[in-house]
Amino acid sequence: MKLSELARILGAELHWPNGSQAEDPRIDGVGPIQDSGPGHVTFLTSPQYARYLSDTRASAVIVGSATADVAIPQLVHANPYWAFAKATQVFFEPRAARPGISQRADIAASASLGAEVSIYPFVCVDEGAKIGDRVVLYPGVFVGADAVIGDDSVIHANAVLESDSCLGERTIVHAGVVIGGDGFGFAPGPGGLAKIAQSGRVTVDDDVEIGANSNIDRGALADTSIGRGTKIDSQVQIGHNVVVGQHCMICGMTAIAGSGKLGNGVLVAGHSAVSNHCEVGDGAKVGGMTGISKNAPAGGEYLGFPSMPAAEWRREQARLRRLPKLERRVKELEKTIERLLGNQSSGT
Amino acid sequence: MKLSELARILGAELHWPNGSQAEDPRIDGVGPIQDSGPGHVTFLTSPQYARYLSDTRASAVIVGSATADVAIPQLVHANPYWAFAKATQVFFEPRAARPGISQRADIAASASLGAEVSIYPFVCVDEGAKIGDRVVLYPGVFVGADAVIGDDSVIHANAVLESDSCLGERTIVHAGVVIGGDGFGFAPGPGGLAKIAQSGRVTVDDDVEIGANSNIDRGALADTSIGRGTKIDSQVQIGHNVVVGQHCMICGMTAIAGSGKLGNGVLVAGHSAVSNHCEVGDGAKVGGMTGISKNAPAGGEYLGFPSMPAAEWRREQARLRRLPKLERRVKELEKTIERLLGNQSSGT
Amino acid sequence: MKLSELARILGAELHWPNGSQAEDPRIDGVGPIQDSGPGHVTFLTSPQYARYLSDTRASAVIVGSATADVAIPQLVHANPYWAFAKATQVFFEPRAARPGISQRADIAASASLGAEVSIYPFVCVDEGAKIGDRVVLYPGVFVGADAVIGDDSVIHANAVLESDSCLGERTIVHAGVVIGGDGFGFAPGPGGLAKIAQSGRVTVDDDVEIGANSNIDRGALADTSIGRGTKIDSQVQIGHNVVVGQHCMICGMTAIAGSGKLGNGVLVAGHSAVSNHCEVGDGAKVGGMTGISKNAPAGGEYLGFPSMPAAEWRREQARLRRLPKLERRVKELEKTIERLLGNQSSGT
Repeated sequence: MKLSELARILGAELHWPNGSQAEDPRIDGVGPIQDSGPGHVTFLTSPQYARYLSDTRASAVIVGSATADVAIPQLVHANPYWAFAKATQVFFEPRAARPGISQRADIAASASLGAEVSIYPFVCVDEGAKIGDRVVLYPGVFVGADAVIGDDSVIHANAVLESDSCLGERTIVHAGVVIGGDGFGFAPGPGGLAKIAQSGRVTVDDDVEIGANSNIDRGALADTSIGRGTKIDSQVQIGHNVVVGQHCMICGMTAIAGSGKLGNGVLVAGHSAVSNHCEVGDGAKVGGMTGISKNAPAGGEYLGFPSMPAAEWRREQARLRRLPKLERRVKELEKTIERLLGNQSSGT
Repeated sequence: MKLSELARILGAELHWPNGSQAEDPRIDGVGPIQDSGPGHVTFLTSPQYARYLSDTRASAVIVGSATADVAIPQLVHANPYWAFAKATQVFFEPRAARPGISQRADIAASASLGAEVSIYPFVCVDEGAKIGDRVVLYPGVFVGADAVIGDDSVIHANAVLESDSCLGERTIVHAGVVIGGDGFGFAPGPGGLAKIAQSGRVTVDDDVEIGANSNIDRGALADTSIGRGTKIDSQVQIGHNVVVGQHCMICGMTAIAGSGKLGNGVLVAGHSAVSNHCEVGDGAKVGGMTGISKNAPAGGEYLGFPSMPAAEWRREQARLRRLPKLERRVKELEKTIERLLGNQSSGT
Repeated sequence: MKLSELARILGAELHWPNGSQAEDPRIDGVGPIQDSGPGHVTFLTSPQYARYLSDTRASAVIVGSATADVAIPQLVHANPYWAFAKATQVFFEPRAARPGISQRADIAASASLGAEVSIYPFVCVDEGAKIGDRVVLYPGVFVGADAVIGDDSVIHANAVLESDSCLGERTIVHAGVVIGGDGFGFAPGPGGLAKIAQSGRVTVDDDVEIGANSNIDRGALADTSIGRGTKIDSQVQIGHNVVVGQHCMICGMTAIAGSGKLGNGVLVAGHSAVSNHCEVGDGAKVGGMTGISKNAPAGGEYLGFPSMPAAEWRREQARLRRLPKLERRVKELEKTIERLLGNQSSGT
């Protein structure tokens, strides 16, 4: 692909070195700025990598704004990180799934399969399940009774979709994911812990992606639901009755406890948690290793456990680092006072 | 089912509105207080939901003690949360498992199968394994050599029970669980880390439930064991040689490190950890995001890392929030002293 | 096996009780010091267990240095923990894998299989995959297209090796592990989060072991790689483009975020995290529940979040425990000052 063609696809403006158009180079891939070679387009989205720009062997670079003395063509885009993402899609050739339905898959009589599905060996689709058009089910996937998978979704190997779960269109479920296992609800009483029947479902909207070995538990009385376009990393746990809004990002090893609620556009960094019944508002950012222990209003940034606004947490951390100094200041005061008192008593 | 019949099953006392028995309504489900409709029994176990009671459209409510001016019949039970749990069981109709043994399952010649088992396609049962009566093995389950599964247990899709593992009766193992993988034991030496053979087993007692994608590692020399009636949430990790007592609850994303020990009736909240060789006593409560770093005596409540009694942790958190004030007080003292010293020197 | 033969294998020096060789006992297993019986060799690697030495019923003990008044033969080794590990290997008889290739496995025509492989039912090996000699694939394993598994590796049930992933020789992958799922990379833009194509691979070097339900995500542009001899516990998450060195140990419920880097011989304790792009130097030790939030130089020990040298963290914890005292000291100063000021004003 010619560079000018790529610029057109990305909606980027092309700045030629020294202002004059040279040859239109052929681009065949995307690479990191340090390791790119001829034919690669690279990208500059963080100022800390700017120093590599003069030495890169890439044929072009995606930037947020053009710089004067750059030796290679620049693709200028107001959102260079997004343009970079788009570029990786342009050059990525996903492997074609094996067409058709394996004789070694087990499809229940009452299940319905869409057109052009790809079903690998050892897939089991239970009674009443509905599989949309062009869905890919990799080996070992189990689709429980009456579960629904929307068109163009891809379910990777050994993922499990328990009965009644409902996935939208273009969802991507990675290997080992479990959707619709029982939520964790028990009441102590005579003879031990009585199980609260988990009779809700899991509903996952269109364009959601769920990373390897994550799980989403089914609701107790109501449903657990994940909004359109939300992306969930690997090893994330989402408890029963949780409601996650649209276009959220939930990073690895994070747990959203039962009945937690995330608005739209929420970012939860890695190894964090949201406590039972807590709400995180639209557009809020939850930092790493943070435990949201009370409602976190929209738009804020939160850190710590107990959770607090990030700026407050940072000030508290600074104060903790100043504790040795505070202790010394108090010691100093004590000495001065002692001296003063000594002076006084010797003075009287 | 008539309400009076439900009251009888739950062992609850029926209080009619205005003290006089009206019609005995038909109940066909359980619902949350805000979203219930006619035919639902709802429940009130937390005072914060009491305000919804006047508006609920439910036909009856489970409560801990009767209130005078409630328009619907009240089911009074000393343990309303437990009565609610029981009610969910009354109205929950679990899906019947597919009867019989799939021709597409692989059962070793020396394995033994109980009566009325349900074995789905792509299940593999290895040599010497013993499967009890009425056990359900969903698709993709692997039961290793000489493993034992007690009567009436249900193992969900793609769960793995490694060789020699032993499950009691009525256990529920959710999808993706791994029981009996090697514990993590290595000794540094010449040529790298030497593996300590993990020759113990995992034993899981009756009525235990294990959530999706959790795992319990086999012991090194002794066994890892989980006591009767204990409930384990999703994404929990239990290391080798851990001993968990009876009727514990271990919430999601929690790790119990090697040789940790939990007594009976212990509650561990989510995203927590128990360090190697640490013991948590009977009835203790471990809060969320807590790292038990030394023994936690019975009956206590613990928080923080390093762990401490919860009351102490809360006081420490309050003190941290007061740090800005403490700094100001020290500053104030310093100014006063300076002034005093100034007075003194000017006074002498 | 005679004890003298075991001493020879371990490279340990044999100290007989009272300095004189008695009978050469037969040893048939390894046991913990409290629970061993005749025929067992036990070990003493921690002084806290020394008190059990006089009462142990074991036939011999592995120690770091001989003690005078021990009634049983002592195997003296400079690295007793390593000698213990070796001893467990001597007496461990791993179960033989089922020989041959199950008729119920699904092997793509273009896949290549080494000599003496053991392939269980319901294994699926995709096009172009290369399986080395003596490799064992347990039930439900999926090996993606063009993936490579080195000689003598063992992949446990339902583990998934996505396309292009590459495992070295003698690797052990436990049940439920996912290697090569997509990394977590998205760029916000018009219409939601645009996926950054994850076109890198995962490469895992020789002698690596990966615990149950862990996962290693494939790289975005470059590869994710795990160095020779590194051991990864259960429920660990390793993000895209992470580079882990040789002979590291990464304990359970730990997450290494995208582009994190671990040197050689790094130890990361349980329930910890390394933030994006952070580096942990050779031989560093990361404590439990720690979040590495900036580069952690080689050889150091780190704790806390934000992370700091362990000694600093411990001092800070001590200071936090002293906060009540500090508050009282400030209160005392305030009173004294007030009294002083009172004296002064009454004195003038």
